Amino acid sequence: MTDSWVNSAEILGSDLPLELSGTGNRRALLMNALREAVRSGRLAPGTRLPPYRSLAADLGLARNTVADAYAELVAEGWLAARQGSGTRVAERAAPVTPVHRPRTPERAVRPVHDLVQGQPDPSVFPRTAWLASARRALAAAPDDAFGPGDPHGRPELRRALAGYLARVRGVRAAPDRIVLCSGAAHGLRLLAEVVGGPWAAEAYGLPFHRELLASHGVGTRPLGVDADGARVDGLTRRDRAVLLTPAHQFPTGGPLHPARRAAVVDWARATGGLVVEDDYDGEFRYDRQPVGAVQGLDPEHVVLVGSVSKSLSPALRIGWMVLPQRLVAPVVAAKGEREQFSSATEQLTLADFIESGAYDRQVRRMRQRHRRRRDQLVAALHARAPHVRVTGIAAGLHAVVELPPGTERSAVRAAAWQGLAVEGLGDYLHPGAEDASRGPRASRAHRAGAAGNADAVRAAGPADASLVPHRDGLVVGYATPAESAYPEALDALCRALPPAAPLATPPAATPVSAPPPPPAAP
Amino acid sequence: MTDSWVNSAEILGSDLPLELSGTGNRRALLMNALREAVRSGRLAPGTRLPPYRSLAADLGLARNTVADAYAELVAEGWLAARQGSGTRVAERAAPVTPVHRPRTPERAVRPVHDLVQGQPDPSVFPRTAWLASARRALAAAPDDAFGPGDPHGRPELRRALAGYLARVRGVRAAPDRIVLCSGAAHGLRLLAEVVGGPWAAEAYGLPFHRELLASHGVGTRPLGVDADGARVDGLTRRDRAVLLTPAHQFPTGGPLHPARRAAVVDWARATGGLVVEDDYDGEFRYDRQPVGAVQGLDPEHVVLVGSVSKSLSPALRIGWMVLPQRLVAPVVAAKGEREQFSSATEQLTLADFIESGAYDRQVRRMRQRHRRRRDQLVAALHARAPHVRVTGIAAGLHAVVELPPGTERSAVRAAAWQGLAVEGLGDYLHPGAEDASRGPRASRAHRAGAAGNADAVRAAGPADASLVPHRDGLVVGYATPAESAYPEALDALCRALPPAAPLATPPAATPVSAPPPPPAAP
Repeated sequence: MTDSWVNSAEILGSDLPLELSGTGNRRALLMNALREAVRSGRLAPGTRLPPYRSLAADLGLARNTVADAYAELVAEGWLAARQGSGTRVAERAAPVTPVHRPRTPERAVRPVHDLVQGQPDPSVFPRTAWLASARRALAAAPDDAFGPGDPHGRPELRRALAGYLARVRGVRAAPDRIVLCSGAAHGLRLLAEVVGGPWAAEAYGLPFHRELLASHGVGTRPLGVDADGARVDGLTRRDRAVLLTPAHQFPTGGPLHPARRAAVVDWARATGGLVVEDDYDGEFRYDRQPVGAVQGLDPEHVVLVGSVSKSLSPALRIGWMVLPQRLVAPVVAAKGEREQFSSATEQLTLADFIESGAYDRQVRRMRQRHRRRRDQLVAALHARAPHVRVTGIAAGLHAVVELPPGTERSAVRAAAWQGLAVEGLGDYLHPGAEDASRGPRASRAHRAGAAGNADAVRAAGPADASLVPHRDGLVVGYATPAESAYPEALDALCRALPPAAPLATPPAATPVSAPPPPPAAP
Repeated sequence: MTDSWVNSAEILGSDLPLELSGTGNRRALLMNALREAVRSGRLAPGTRLPPYRSLAADLGLARNTVADAYAELVAEGWLAARQGSGTRVAERAAPVTPVHRPRTPERAVRPVHDLVQGQPDPSVFPRTAWLASARRALAAAPDDAFGPGDPHGRPELRRALAGYLARVRGVRAAPDRIVLCSGAAHGLRLLAEVVGGPWAAEAYGLPFHRELLASHGVGTRPLGVDADGARVDGLTRRDRAVLLTPAHQFPTGGPLHPARRAAVVDWARATGGLVVEDDYDGEFRYDRQPVGAVQGLDPEHVVLVGSVSKSLSPALRIGWMVLPQRLVAPVVAAKGEREQFSSATEQLTLADFIESGAYDRQVRRMRQRHRRRRDQLVAALHARAPHVRVTGIAAGLHAVVELPPGTERSAVRAAAWQGLAVEGLGDYLHPGAEDASRGPRASRAHRAGAAGNADAVRAAGPADASLVPHRDGLVVGYATPAESAYPEALDALCRALPPAAPLATPPAATPVSAPPPPPAAP
């Protein structure tokens, strides 16, 4: 162990710790420290060193010690002394040995055209309006906003959201029922932790959500999906919760039928199960006013999960849960003693953005834009590929382009050849539903689920999934491309579509079959 | 199941879903929907209803149906029709039945004086400078900043932090070694997940951190703490990592001795263990320039964890880890595929705040303020309680006021009687160290640790903990009170301190004893 001592100096008014350590003579120690600072890049070429006098005072050295060290380092070529401008790090100082910089894998080269669903065009973020809200929010914020945060979230934002969601989504929400989170994913993590598994989930859905639940010990069991949305008649007493996208089934695109809205609430009341309503794009309906949230039917049995990720930007990381009374305290407890994730200034800015009407204006502008995008998609397909059709309601940020049976994978590959990123419907199919159509091997969902849930996943199987026809299609996200890039992306899409008469005989449409559901628990 | 149908209408240019459900006649359905909207508060008193014509069109009803429904509701007192201003919700409509609003337990009544350590005074947040940075950051941000985020964090902020940390903390950090997180707690969660347990931790430390690690399956084993900081000679090959506060041991207040800085790096190199350097207040040293981070000694074996929570505000939720190369990819993978937590606009704002020099200015201002606060504390105690002394270096946002043996709990209680919130040193003692002094019963740390770590926790015991004298003291956070409130808080503190001659005979100072450490693994 060296009997070292350390000291440090301020250079150029900024704090640069210059550590002198070791037992040698002081001049040598200082020289080593300066060499090391240059070598490591901490003192960049051209940086001006402090006068002898002040460095000597800072380090507790004799002035001559510093002067000698400088002079020797000038002689060695590390420093350069220029008349009238003091001593600086030499421009051609001993070559800097940078901190080891590995080649980190760059993000895969982006394709030329991007029709992967999920994101609004980042170039339309309302920077000016957002900044105006930030200015008002920062001016009006009480001091305690800059202290440690309450894990419920800022009351200003919960009040604004309660009013907004009641008005626009028919949500029945007192502000104290709202708990803020950093997005829908964070909300699902917290709900998984509090509610436990297993859950039922739509057979078509976001793989990310299923994997997130699985990584929190919650296995999911697929529910069939048809033109009326999820087959909620397949829910059982074993399901602790069901994850649904009632306003606009993701990604197949239908709304949940009113009778099924009522039925899922009946199920929740009868069994004590929880309906998790992922209201991911509820504001975006183009043919009529959006249907209100299921949450409004029964706030004690439905959690509404929402965020600004589709309506404004996924970069803000603000989401919310509207919770039944009994879940508020457990979810807040799961979140932690203090707010650990969401920035208070962003929360306050969003509260102002909503209250000032800027959010309504942005949503309205985006609605017009998305509707136009969807119309362009439909028109392009009508003109150039009349044998395929766009299914689902006119809503959201994506549409499903239905393809002739057996052509989905080749269409995705053809798109890649056109430089077009787009996903197939099959990419969203629950692995349990997928596997059920292929035989008895353990499903991915089963493997991913926590050990304790595996039996439930296996035993229950997809509910009446034989009624879910296996569909070929592309999930086309029309919201992401910049305005100028969209026509070319559509062009690439049309080129990637299979011709009217498939070149090869397609396999017969494969029904997603499954064993019948077990008898309902008494 | 009702054979219901739903439809909705736009009211006053905002979206108000008005759901007509059921099978009765349309007028009755509309009346029910409007009554429910008023009853639930979704239509507030005074709200203007749309003209018959447009509501009828929106809902697909005959105009007369709407006119009749309005007329009946006016007759019932729900609505009011005024000449020239259309139909509005009556000011004295049937009393609003609010959504059930439970009495949520309010935060415990705050004490009058707050000297609990941990937070800067929230009233000194630099709102104007922060907003100026936000304006520049929003103007300069590339469009992709508003798309889904890279879990590394924004490159602008990682670059700014690499420069800042190298300059101010002697950290050797290429930007690609920095991974952003939402605070030190988030960083520790990620490291626990990636590194696994057990860890060693200072016998005095933040209970929150130990509990966080335990909840992620990582048990901690206490390391003795003396005037030279943590007894790192107690580290063994079994420790996967050690959590240290080298710049300013938390909360006892000493810096880690240079020989121990070297020794802990030697341990890490020899065993492959990881040094987790919690640099929670490294910028705040008042008697001299701060000692550089241990990370600078060996970036491949030390993770530096930092945040803006002490320097700026805990409300921003921005922190960082400077990682060894081998941990970058695993930590990013543990964080998730995309940025789920930290707002990109906040990250960009902080990058500008650092690059523009505003961060340096704020730190300098806070340093002067904290130093003055500490001087006031020392002076007050010198004048009014010369028998107690402030220990630890002049640094950070807190100091330890050492008390006569056996008087800590009574002093904390006396403080509470004075309306003063302050914590005792004992509140920070590792439960393993605590229990070791009291006998062989299983320690809380052991119980909290993951099952797989229990043996290591039990077998290793605190390292040479017999050298850790059990100390009585108050951990005084002098940074939190507003300027005007601080003198009174100090006054309350002085009143709460035990008199020079303790009223009761104190128990003999209890050494924290423990079995000797096991023989080092070969």
